[in-house]
Amino acid sequence: MEFAYSPKVQQLRERVTAFMDTHVYAAEAVFDQQVSTGDRWQPTAIMEELKAKAKAEGLWNLFLPESELGAGLTNLEYAPLAEIMGRSLLGPEPFNCSAPDTGNMEVLVRYANEAQKKQWLEPLLRGEIRSAFAMTEPAVASSDATNMQARAVREGDEWVINGTKWWTSGACDPRCKIMIFMGLTNPDAPRHQQHSMILVPTDAPGVKIVRPLPVFGYDDAPHGHAEVKFENVRVPYENVLLGEGRGFEIAQGRLGPGRIHHCMRSIGMAERALELMCKRSISRTAFGKPLARLGGNIDIIADSRMEINQARLLTLNAAYMMDTVGNKVAASEIAQIKVVAPNVALRVIDRAIQMHGGAGVSGDFPLAYMYAMQRTLRLADGPDEVHRMAIGKYEIGKYMPRDMPRSK
Amino acid sequence: MEFAYSPKVQQLRERVTAFMDTHVYAAEAVFDQQVSTGDRWQPTAIMEELKAKAKAEGLWNLFLPESELGAGLTNLEYAPLAEIMGRSLLGPEPFNCSAPDTGNMEVLVRYANEAQKKQWLEPLLRGEIRSAFAMTEPAVASSDATNMQARAVREGDEWVINGTKWWTSGACDPRCKIMIFMGLTNPDAPRHQQHSMILVPTDAPGVKIVRPLPVFGYDDAPHGHAEVKFENVRVPYENVLLGEGRGFEIAQGRLGPGRIHHCMRSIGMAERALELMCKRSISRTAFGKPLARLGGNIDIIADSRMEINQARLLTLNAAYMMDTVGNKVAASEIAQIKVVAPNVALRVIDRAIQMHGGAGVSGDFPLAYMYAMQRTLRLADGPDEVHRMAIGKYEIGKYMPRDMPRSK
Amino acid sequence: MEFAYSPKVQQLRERVTAFMDTHVYAAEAVFDQQVSTGDRWQPTAIMEELKAKAKAEGLWNLFLPESELGAGLTNLEYAPLAEIMGRSLLGPEPFNCSAPDTGNMEVLVRYANEAQKKQWLEPLLRGEIRSAFAMTEPAVASSDATNMQARAVREGDEWVINGTKWWTSGACDPRCKIMIFMGLTNPDAPRHQQHSMILVPTDAPGVKIVRPLPVFGYDDAPHGHAEVKFENVRVPYENVLLGEGRGFEIAQGRLGPGRIHHCMRSIGMAERALELMCKRSISRTAFGKPLARLGGNIDIIADSRMEINQARLLTLNAAYMMDTVGNKVAASEIAQIKVVAPNVALRVIDRAIQMHGGAGVSGDFPLAYMYAMQRTLRLADGPDEVHRMAIGKYEIGKYMPRDMPRSK
Amino acid sequence: MEFAYSPKVQQLRERVTAFMDTHVYAAEAVFDQQVSTGDRWQPTAIMEELKAKAKAEGLWNLFLPESELGAGLTNLEYAPLAEIMGRSLLGPEPFNCSAPDTGNMEVLVRYANEAQKKQWLEPLLRGEIRSAFAMTEPAVASSDATNMQARAVREGDEWVINGTKWWTSGACDPRCKIMIFMGLTNPDAPRHQQHSMILVPTDAPGVKIVRPLPVFGYDDAPHGHAEVKFENVRVPYENVLLGEGRGFEIAQGRLGPGRIHHCMRSIGMAERALELMCKRSISRTAFGKPLARLGGNIDIIADSRMEINQARLLTLNAAYMMDTVGNKVAASEIAQIKVVAPNVALRVIDRAIQMHGGAGVSGDFPLAYMYAMQRTLRLADGPDEVHRMAIGKYEIGKYMPRDMPRSK
Repeated sequence: MEFAYSPKVQQLRERVTAFMDTHVYAAEAVFDQQVSTGDRWQPTAIMEELKAKAKAEGLWNLFLPESELGAGLTNLEYAPLAEIMGRSLLGPEPFNCSAPDTGNMEVLVRYANEAQKKQWLEPLLRGEIRSAFAMTEPAVASSDATNMQARAVREGDEWVINGTKWWTSGACDPRCKIMIFMGLTNPDAPRHQQHSMILVPTDAPGVKIVRPLPVFGYDDAPHGHAEVKFENVRVPYENVLLGEGRGFEIAQGRLGPGRIHHCMRSIGMAERALELMCKRSISRTAFGKPLARLGGNIDIIADSRMEINQARLLTLNAAYMMDTVGNKVAASEIAQIKVVAPNVALRVIDRAIQMHGGAGVSGDFPLAYMYAMQRTLRLADGPDEVHRMAIGKYEIGKYMPRDMPRSK
Repeated sequence: MEFAYSPKVQQLRERVTAFMDTHVYAAEAVFDQQVSTGDRWQPTAIMEELKAKAKAEGLWNLFLPESELGAGLTNLEYAPLAEIMGRSLLGPEPFNCSAPDTGNMEVLVRYANEAQKKQWLEPLLRGEIRSAFAMTEPAVASSDATNMQARAVREGDEWVINGTKWWTSGACDPRCKIMIFMGLTNPDAPRHQQHSMILVPTDAPGVKIVRPLPVFGYDDAPHGHAEVKFENVRVPYENVLLGEGRGFEIAQGRLGPGRIHHCMRSIGMAERALELMCKRSISRTAFGKPLARLGGNIDIIADSRMEINQARLLTLNAAYMMDTVGNKVAASEIAQIKVVAPNVALRVIDRAIQMHGGAGVSGDFPLAYMYAMQRTLRLADGPDEVHRMAIGKYEIGKYMPRDMPRSK
Repeated sequence: MEFAYSPKVQQLRERVTAFMDTHVYAAEAVFDQQVSTGDRWQPTAIMEELKAKAKAEGLWNLFLPESELGAGLTNLEYAPLAEIMGRSLLGPEPFNCSAPDTGNMEVLVRYANEAQKKQWLEPLLRGEIRSAFAMTEPAVASSDATNMQARAVREGDEWVINGTKWWTSGACDPRCKIMIFMGLTNPDAPRHQQHSMILVPTDAPGVKIVRPLPVFGYDDAPHGHAEVKFENVRVPYENVLLGEGRGFEIAQGRLGPGRIHHCMRSIGMAERALELMCKRSISRTAFGKPLARLGGNIDIIADSRMEINQARLLTLNAAYMMDTVGNKVAASEIAQIKVVAPNVALRVIDRAIQMHGGAGVSGDFPLAYMYAMQRTLRLADGPDEVHRMAIGKYEIGKYMPRDMPRSK
Repeated sequence: MEFAYSPKVQQLRERVTAFMDTHVYAAEAVFDQQVSTGDRWQPTAIMEELKAKAKAEGLWNLFLPESELGAGLTNLEYAPLAEIMGRSLLGPEPFNCSAPDTGNMEVLVRYANEAQKKQWLEPLLRGEIRSAFAMTEPAVASSDATNMQARAVREGDEWVINGTKWWTSGACDPRCKIMIFMGLTNPDAPRHQQHSMILVPTDAPGVKIVRPLPVFGYDDAPHGHAEVKFENVRVPYENVLLGEGRGFEIAQGRLGPGRIHHCMRSIGMAERALELMCKRSISRTAFGKPLARLGGNIDIIADSRMEINQARLLTLNAAYMMDTVGNKVAASEIAQIKVVAPNVALRVIDRAIQMHGGAGVSGDFPLAYMYAMQRTLRLADGPDEVHRMAIGKYEIGKYMPRDMPRSK
């Protein structure tokens, strides 16, 4: 066992940290201001500048394990960098490492044909376009993904797609050119072979962005979380990825690395909140003492440190397992971080809000916005409850006689 | 002991419930739509209609204990009605029972002179104007109210006021005509006699609404939580309430009933969230079962019921004590509900959000908005920490020898 | 609504408090010493003295609502007295108000015939003998009482009883002369009509006290929690209470008041722990300050006060409902206090232990013993989980269409 | 970074696990039986047999980093073995790895002179005698170790020792031949240089074992937690370790590794509890289903797995830091595990108790005993509160300007 970062990772950590310190944190206010003036659903100039700078420094596409197209980092090597990027809500995009593009690019690397790669993957890797993932639906409990009802029916050489999706993040951004749609294609197949993933250009006739969904009161412009209606949308049959009925197979592959990314960003956000909380606790005075010396405030800081450190180690260990034994064997560990990381981040951010008083819930600090974004992660990609169930079943499975009927 | 509502209260509960069922819940979507079209900082037509209806039914000014101007209800009698109103964020205003007007009207009833009552109290009681309370400041820790720095200096027959306040809720609404400003007037007096409350018309020269502060992305329009700048604002000397240096004395009197109101509304909001959670749990299906039958969901519902019932009884008991032994003797009990009620509401609302999946954080249900509003109540009127400190000191005080030096 | 104790109750509270202050607390060390010298399974002299004193003062059989045999108090009137008695583990017995005798006496009052009352109820009411309740079994999950396997088979005019019970509290005490045995008599009847309650004298041939079960190392002598074996025990057929197959019917009736008693005693224990915690916090010094002024200790005290006050009000309200609408309508409320009260007591006691350092887990304070006893109450009479399930089902039942199949 | 156990450690883990499986678990009932028959304060035959077996297998003195006298393992290498031993309360002693001997042996290795090593360290390393550590005192808050009042006064070539210690674990065992006494020797020196550590043979005249202190109801015989009175005890002056006034210096060195050991054993205990909980959950049936499929039970198992995994990684990382950057730099990390590990163990054990029903609090499973032992670890070697304070201060120290006065 060896808990130190490798020299390679340590050097990248320093470079990414320097980029954040020099460029990103200062850009937060500029970004807010650019979004709130003019059309908030257009890309901002500041973000394009940041992207150009990071690309010029070679801090680009740091994700993508097991591919020559990325920076050649393992999940374990990338994770600490994702943490640092996660410290700002603006952090990942400059490095072309933001969701949902990273997950979508991984899908395309693995499952797209050469023409599709040329058309969609390459501009994504260059940061010229963005993408969306259309899976969740408003009408059914998405915690059970087999509930998905949106249909794609083959007609000759085409798919005809109908249905409504929501929480299709990023689809409101005009740079979003391609969506990975997941829907019911083979209703008579076994339960986990009924759905397929299909590439759908955002400008295909019949694709309608109904509205951006707010998260608490944030519209997250210009990214946005869209409700999308598909009305007789037609795309070529070969747009199906990997094959008919193999949607869940791809989803499993896609979600592993995506979760590591999300979780490490959650930890970064928790670290930022803890830093803000500490600074506030020594700079504000009440009853003649800095807040840090009042009541249980110091304990709250200590609890936050302990929770963050544990969540980080758990996530790094999961990344290590993904790299060494694979996503399938690491299924329980991946589920564990999916529960732990956002919950830790939410607790730490909430305490930081409390330490900031009214400023904490306002826009003067990034805390309330971070809270709202983290809150969605207890729901997205499976709610806590589904992951806890999986972890628990795996645990009792160790003691279950082989011939005992398993719970479904 | 007698835990049943009196017939008088029970009848009022039924009438207020009927009003909510018939008019208010249905108005929520209309209100949202009216705010989001046109100038969101103008009052809505729907609210004026609701006010007219409630006034016509005699459900008006139900607060105001110990005064002929209200409905003649004690705090204990009013509390269950505030709970029902609290079930909707729109609930209190139709009955002219919304914060901060209720607290401000109580202050005016007790401490204003006849001319001031005529000018400000009467139109407030008629629901023609609204009011604000300017106490919290951005530059200092408001948990310790003695930190307040905004100054009012006497010059002849006038006060000259300078300083910045924020979280002056309601000041963005054009109907808001009067503010109660609290600031430093006697810096050399003992610590709790340095501040005064002064009536300041919103349109006085030098009063500047700097911006509305968002709460988790919500601007709460057209009400709004304002940052207000006072630049050489001049008002007559007699606008000081009760007397120079008596601001804290008034604050103590103001906050007791205000807290009961807030807490009962929190409980109403928690009840609404629990109802939504229960309904969702039986109407959504995952893995072949309604959510209510999956994992620990039923326990979560049970925990919510237990926490709500306890918080309600605690609040009603505090109201009873205020009515029978007075706010001062009931100080610990009032502090207790100030901590308990918003925290219970936040937990229940958060669980309801989780049960609703992505819909829970969106605007399709009132849950995320309720969460944001409740979150401010752990900060407003003293953060949890200050109240816990007071409760704890009161508790150990029971065992403290009289000659032991008390902590400050 | 009226939250004050009635004059009658207030006067009794003062008398019981005075008795505790004068006699009971001082007896705790004497009791420990008498138990630990000589045969620890014999009754102590000190307890008999306390009983004589309380009886002489007319503080006797204060429980027993709706019966001329007790003090004529309702559940709501008795509850505050049970709280005071509960402050000491020795508290209830002097007043002839200790479990499981109170529950057993209530059963006998309602369901025994005259001869049985004469033989068993009268000496119990006089405090001359004690009793036990043999329900829980080691071999099955007792959370589902229909699992009970011990059999009573009719042979002519007799029952022949076989099986093993445990947690038959009090059966180790030589004063325990009568047990209420609950077992399977009608295995072919509907699920809740298969079991009966039968009176079994402790000295009946075939009754064997196997061992006292320790609770966290405490044997609770001379009371004791027995494992009891029934081997071909024969008792007259008329010893069945109420009738064959009506065991669950009696159990429901028995458990309501019993739970109120337990819960109020839990609250009394929590109050005692809070008092000890406060006293310790001002009498011990570390880092130059009394513990009360260090870190979050004052918050911990405040949290305890808030939790206790809420639990008490919840329990009193449940008692009120039992008195006014009956145990059946109050089922959810009774389940709620069964969960809340012991959990609150455990949290408060645990915090008090922490404030006492090593002394807290030792025998120098009653805290660790109280903790152990309270811990059993999260399991006895149905574990938390079963009660939460009942509360949750009741809650969603409010919104369930009548024709929807209920969960079993 | 590398999260896998090294082949050396992995092989030792397998050997220790095999020893536990083959010998230790089966010995638990035998040990209980031997203690409860005859004089419970005499060593048991079974433990001597286990020691002989482990020694014969070369599984002996596995602790002791940085010394040729042990097995040559680093803290990080030893930690996973301590975890496995910790699964049984009997686990550590067979391997001569039990507290407080390990900590005492480390002190002797570092600070004793050759004669002292020969007299005390060698028989300890051979497992022929045992030892105790006399630090905590009943009359003062030991959370602040500078409170220690027991005195050692130099008279010529001797120390004369007076005072009372308690929680001197192991001192009741007749094999305990040597105590490390810590007391006030230089009251006029600076605060952390007033105390010294002095070797005191248990049979020195004036040493009186007053009583064994129970932990909850457990006396922990034949080990025992002693109250010890020192009355004019005389020992040679050279028995002082390292030098006068250097007690705190040694204590700091002693406690680091000791904490790692304790924490890893806590994690082992939590793993055992989780295993028992899982097994129970699939073997007991209620309401027609195994407990694992009822309500939130599976979530409880999942939570336990997540908490244990995090606590283990945190502890291993702390061990790694001790090995690489030293105890002083790792101070916050060591404090963190001291808080986290026992609290996680207590939560998991408590849940396991609940899953076992009444059996859980009894002696039929090791759970209640484990709970009691773990509960002491939130108090021993500094209560949670002191460690949280240290962690929090370290955290805010990162942001503190150098010239700001630190809190004491």
